[in-house]
Formats: sequence, structure tokens, C-alpha cells
Amino acid sequence: MAVLTQLAIRRRLFGVKDLKVKPLLDPEGQIEEGAINLTLGTKFVIPKKSEYPLIDPRKLDKNEVAKFQTKITLALGQTISLHPHQFALGATFEFLKLPPNLCAFVLSRSSFGRAGLQIATATYVHPGWQGCLTLELQNLGEVPIRLYCGSPICQLVLLEAHPPLKKGPGMFRRDKPVQVFFPVCLVLEVGENRPQGN
Amino acid sequence: MAVLTQLAIRRRLFGVKDLKVKPLLDPEGQIEEGAINLTLGTKFVIPKKSEYPLIDPRKLDKNEVAKFQTKITLALGQTISLHPHQFALGATFEFLKLPPNLCAFVLSRSSFGRAGLQIATATYVHPGWQGCLTLELQNLGEVPIRLYCGSPICQLVLLEAHPPLKKGPGMFRRDKPVQVFFPVCLVLEVGENRPQGN
Amino acid sequence: MAVLTQLAIRRRLFGVKDLKVKPLLDPEGQIEEGAINLTLGTKFVIPKKSEYPLIDPRKLDKNEVAKFQTKITLALGQTISLHPHQFALGATFEFLKLPPNLCAFVLSRSSFGRAGLQIATATYVHPGWQGCLTLELQNLGEVPIRLYCGSPICQLVLLEAHPPLKKGPGMFRRDKPVQVFFPVCLVLEVGENRPQGN
Repeated sequence: MAVLTQLAIRRRLFGVKDLKVKPLLDPEGQIEEGAINLTLGTKFVIPKKSEYPLIDPRKLDKNEVAKFQTKITLALGQTISLHPHQFALGATFEFLKLPPNLCAFVLSRSSFGRAGLQIATATYVHPGWQGCLTLELQNLGEVPIRLYCGSPICQLVLLEAHPPLKKGPGMFRRDKPVQVFFPVCLVLEVGENRPQGN
Repeated sequence: MAVLTQLAIRRRLFGVKDLKVKPLLDPEGQIEEGAINLTLGTKFVIPKKSEYPLIDPRKLDKNEVAKFQTKITLALGQTISLHPHQFALGATFEFLKLPPNLCAFVLSRSSFGRAGLQIATATYVHPGWQGCLTLELQNLGEVPIRLYCGSPICQLVLLEAHPPLKKGPGMFRRDKPVQVFFPVCLVLEVGENRPQGN
Repeated sequence: MAVLTQLAIRRRLFGVKDLKVKPLLDPEGQIEEGAINLTLGTKFVIPKKSEYPLIDPRKLDKNEVAKFQTKITLALGQTISLHPHQFALGATFEFLKLPPNLCAFVLSRSSFGRAGLQIATATYVHPGWQGCLTLELQNLGEVPIRLYCGSPICQLVLLEAHPPLKKGPGMFRRDKPVQVFFPVCLVLEVGENRPQGN
């Protein structure tokens, strides 16, 4: 019950196998005392800020959105620099699938946090969610930070949720009107490139 | 135990009725897999930054504070624009009352988070707390964001807390000296307009 | 199970004594309904931003790091001013030791949060962790904030973690390569001045 420690995380990943984090390239290094480290993926969305004056969540649609974004795809090991107060969207390299009785928080790791990096403002992952986590990368510090694709940039803290969600129509919905919003494109696109539902 | 999922949230709201979220205008839409979406209220506090050089928490009192704030009251459906790096206080439209055995985190929703909106830096809600949640709205992105009063701007994640707080003198105190601090006015004022204790 | 309320916090601190927060100068005031307030310590690290163009986590070592930091030590009651969008590292005055079955979140307190203060971007404390918590102090507001050493600046929310970590080689490791990173110096230095392991 409550927060999963190392042993419980391993059991769910490798024994019960209802929790999926794929690929988990370095289980020894990534599974810590009470969290799993996730690494920075290779896809980023940088806003073209000069080209749109205002984000209005009720007026933007996905077609319009494409005009306002620069999409960047790098290779593992390549870097992206985040300047002070710069904001960019990234994603975890790992594809994540939570069982119906686990939820999670995605949080900064202390070493990066101390350089001023905030990795998400929206930190909660609902039970049953699947996909590559979108990261809202923000440099709150005063010096540019170099980020490496593939480096363990954030951590996933897992909590038991009760009662387990029941599968069925209307559950696990991820397509609400309010979600028809510019950065969702990133999530969808990243998700399409990964194995799902297994 | 642990985090409440949809079924447990419904049970506490509509069965046991020890958790209060009022008004809950759209229960189907607002109660998600593992959280309740809360909407943006109509009252805001914008600091008059040119008129005070420094916030000193030990010297400010409530009378002095009034001079430093611009209070804005809008109607549901009206909008407020938050410019990059602008900071404003808002509140949830919903009045919230937690039972003595539940605490909560108030968190950004992903669609807004991806536009750069941070809705709170102080995210924890103690067991037994009641009131309209104050939101510390911050645009961490690089483009102005238009916010609609009444739109589902944040989510409340509920966790069981143990053992339940015992009611009595000295419990549920919300009026510590350190709280005699400028934005508390907002909380009190918003709270006065809502039904309490029922 | 789940989040510890006042009674459970007291029991772990003063009964079972497997949770350590030292010194806890004002238990009545600091232990709230569902969290312990921690106070701002006296050591700070301010980056010399003009002297380094880029933080590259793979290239910085501890010797190089010293060149890029200004360390400040104040006395209890003295103040430090944090200007809008300024970033500084601080630490809790309290030394903390978590037992193998508790983890924690360190979070802003509402009164400070409403002035725009964010106290940490990396908010998770692993089970079994010990040390003085490093705070990533950030003024997200638009007016300078005066911070008092010794004032209750943040709160520690404690959650049960399961199963308890087993002690042994490879556990409670806090010295990963990625941690050889500039602000870790602060943690080590602060830790050396405090009683440990008792």
C-alpha cells in the first residue's frame, strides 16, 4: 500500500508484469529506493513564439497548432540547450503503462533541479494511463543548461490507487474536448512510434 | 487506501458524503480516473508591483496589504490573460471540504501545463481543510495564455491520511501568525461568499 | 497507511523514534494536521552567472564547480532577499532522517507560495534518505521577497512506503555519477555540520 519501494517496483515490472516501462535499459541504475528514473527522449516541440500572439485553449485546433510549433528530433546522446526561462516540450524516452491500481507523479531529480531545471508543471499520471510522458521543460535557473537525450532526467514515483479502475466504455478516456489543444500532438506522435497495449 | 480512484471519489462525495466539492456542476466530466477537475473561479488578485519594493512576511499586515493589490471580479465565461512570467492569484470556483482522513494535492492539468501554465506552487491541502483553494497562477511559457473563468483548470488528487484527525480545540486551525500575510485576504473573502460547514 | 497525520507524525518522532527531524525547536507549532513545517537554514549558494556560460552535467566536476558558486552563511534571524526570477540554493535548518518505510514530499507553504516563492522543483525524498534538504529557492513572483533564516518556509508531507527497504550494500546509495554535479557540494557540506546516523 502507499508508495512503492524498490522491491515492489521490481515485482510489478518483472513478476506481476502489470506495470510497463519500455525500454528499461538499465534496471539496476534506474530503479532507485522509491522511484524509477526515466530518461529524456529525442523529440521536442519548441514554440514559434513570434508567430502567435496568444494561446486560447478554446480556439486552437490541431491543424492550426502545427503552424505554431517547431518539431525537433534528435538522436540518443545528442543535446538540446535550454536557456534561462526558456520553455520547451519534451517526452520520456520510455513508454509507460500503468495498471488500473497504480498512479504516479513525475518529478524532477535533485541534481537537475539544482541547476534550475523544472521538468513538469503537470506532474500527475492517472491510473491506467499509457504513453510517453510529456515533459514541460523549463529552465528556472539563470544559466543555460545542456540536456542529453537518454540521460536520466526525471523520476516516477508510484502510488497504489484504490479501488482498481474497471475497464469498460468510458474508462481510460484521453480525448476530452479540452485536450484538443496544441501540445497534445506531441503525445500522439510519440505514442505512435512505440509498442502499445502489450 | 492510498490514492482515491473514480469509484472511491464518487463514494465519498455521494455515498458517505464526508467529502464536499460544491458546486460540482458536471460530475461525469469532472471526476476522472484518479482525480477531480476543479474550475477557475471569478476572483483574482494582481499585485501592484510598482507600489511596493519588497514583500517582508514579518512586516506586512492585512491593512497595509490592501494597498498593494488590485482585486478583479469577473463573471463565469469571462477571461483573464496571463502574460509570460506574469503571476496572479486566483481561486477555484468550487468550495472544498476535506474530511479528517483525506488530504490532497492540487495540480496542473496536462493540457494547460503544456501551454506553460503553473497553477500552484503550494500544492498540498491538509486533512480537514475547507475553503476555496487559492491558485498561484504563473505563466512559465513564452506566449500569453487566455484563461476562462469556469474552465477545468486544475485537478485535485485525493489521498487517504491516517489516523483521522480528531476534532477539538487546536485542531483545524488556519490562523497562525505567519498566515497574517497578504494573499490570505483573498482566501477569506472568497470563503465568505460560499456555504461553509455543511 | 498512506499520508501521516499529526498523531502518526508524533508517534514516529517521539514514540517509535525511527523518524528524525533535528532540531525540532517548536513541535507544537511545526507539526500541523498533515505535515511538518521545516525552517530555512543559514547556508546559501548563489550562482556567479556571469562566469559560466553553460551548465553541462556531464562535464562539471566538483573542483570546477567551486569556481561558479558564491557561498553565503548567515545567522538565524538574518535575511536574504530573492529578486523576481532569481534562483538560489538553500537548505532546511533541520537535519532529516527517514526510516526505510517512509518517503516524503517537500512542498511550499501557502503563505509563501502566494508571494510567488517556489521552494523546490525536485520535491521527492526517497525512503531511508538522510541529510538537510536542499531547497531550490525561486521567486516566481514580481516583487522581491525577504526570507528569514529560521522561518518555517516549507512543509514535509510524509507517506508510508512499502515494503520497507532492506539495509545492505547497494542500498541507501547517494553517490551516483550523475550526482557529481555542482550543487551537491552544498548538501555534503551542510550534512557534515550535523549529527548523523543517530
